[in-house]
Amino acid sequence: MSDDSADYRAAKALVVFSGGMDSAVALYWAREKFAAVATVSFAYGAKHNAVEHRHALKTCAKLGVENTLIELPFIGQHFTSSLLAGGAPVPRGDYNETNMASTVVPFRNGIMLAAAAGFAETRNYDYLVLGNHGGDHAIYPDCRPEFIDGMAAAIYSGTTNGVRLLSPFCRRTKSAIAKIGKELGVDFSLTYSCYEGGEIPCGECATCREREKALRFIGE
Amino acid sequence: MSDDSADYRAAKALVVFSGGMDSAVALYWAREKFAAVATVSFAYGAKHNAVEHRHALKTCAKLGVENTLIELPFIGQHFTSSLLAGGAPVPRGDYNETNMASTVVPFRNGIMLAAAAGFAETRNYDYLVLGNHGGDHAIYPDCRPEFIDGMAAAIYSGTTNGVRLLSPFCRRTKSAIAKIGKELGVDFSLTYSCYEGGEIPCGECATCREREKALRFIGE
Repeated sequence: MSDDSADYRAAKALVVFSGGMDSAVALYWAREKFAAVATVSFAYGAKHNAVEHRHALKTCAKLGVENTLIELPFIGQHFTSSLLAGGAPVPRGDYNETNMASTVVPFRNGIMLAAAAGFAETRNYDYLVLGNHGGDHAIYPDCRPEFIDGMAAAIYSGTTNGVRLLSPFCRRTKSAIAKIGKELGVDFSLTYSCYEGGEIPCGECATCREREKALRFIGE
Repeated sequence: MSDDSADYRAAKALVVFSGGMDSAVALYWAREKFAAVATVSFAYGAKHNAVEHRHALKTCAKLGVENTLIELPFIGQHFTSSLLAGGAPVPRGDYNETNMASTVVPFRNGIMLAAAAGFAETRNYDYLVLGNHGGDHAIYPDCRPEFIDGMAAAIYSGTTNGVRLLSPFCRRTKSAIAKIGKELGVDFSLTYSCYEGGEIPCGECATCREREKALRFIGE
């Protein structure tokens, strides 16, 4: 997934950055490791995309990091998920509940990583960084280690410059990521993580609850 | 890549179908093997996308097969390639020439397969079929067996219904594919394969030359 002792100081990284807390920690993590860092965000028709991206831009402005927004309108047009505009209501409750299955956006991380890989090849970035974590595995198949390993092999062999995929938190919990973020000085007040997409987070969806728990864990 | 003796008769397949000769053979091949078949095409800002897709629809109409067109405008907006509208002129000559590198669209097959995987999961297709072939390997890294193997693992583990990727011609030449197509009764007059995208193929780009050679090989 990633080698903590690896030396990335001569390399450039592109971070997949939603504006949520996990990818914010991934961005701060990458800034410490790499010679240069940029971010890419995706608008895929989700209810929360617009608010989330406004938050992503706040963090990027604070850090002086470039952001490119890639639009994926076909997901909203052709796919089904309660996360998408026009989809069923976002379920309330924790991630371990079976009704959370409706929040799956089919192969979302695969699509985002593939688009990011092509963009990284175009701009000659050496590495892609994704902030997925261990707590997502049960519901979201495109967060699991086997998925990451397959994508890493496909991206490395399928790009002319051999782009490498790093998933530094793939086997960590969200609370552990929050702890790393605190050590790195992440400003969590600039991040956003609600599936409903309102200006004020609902506090009831799974991602709101998980965020709250992780911030409580680090005393914020 | 694919197992010729495998029994797919109870399964449904989604074929990535450009309208060119290789993917037309892949479509006819899948129709023989699977209980049900549909096609997906992509518009990614290439000079030849519009003409190619009109040809794709002719083959689909002839076979009574559904086609969905997925638009990927971000490729034309953010990527660089001589294949894209607004890009440099398409080079003339054979595929083995070094100037062909300009025709690479970064990670194009990865992006198309990822989008097709999400669409297959949404529609509950069991298999994805891609008609890439051995002759593409030298220039296009996203046609190589290692790329296909990585994507197959990522798609299988990253979709809730475990979509399988098949690449039946990955180790065959274009002439061998044309021969299979002839045996399957493919109407090659409905296919289109010119990078320049004119109504009348230029006859000078690498894909025109390769097509001509393959059709000559089977006496068409």
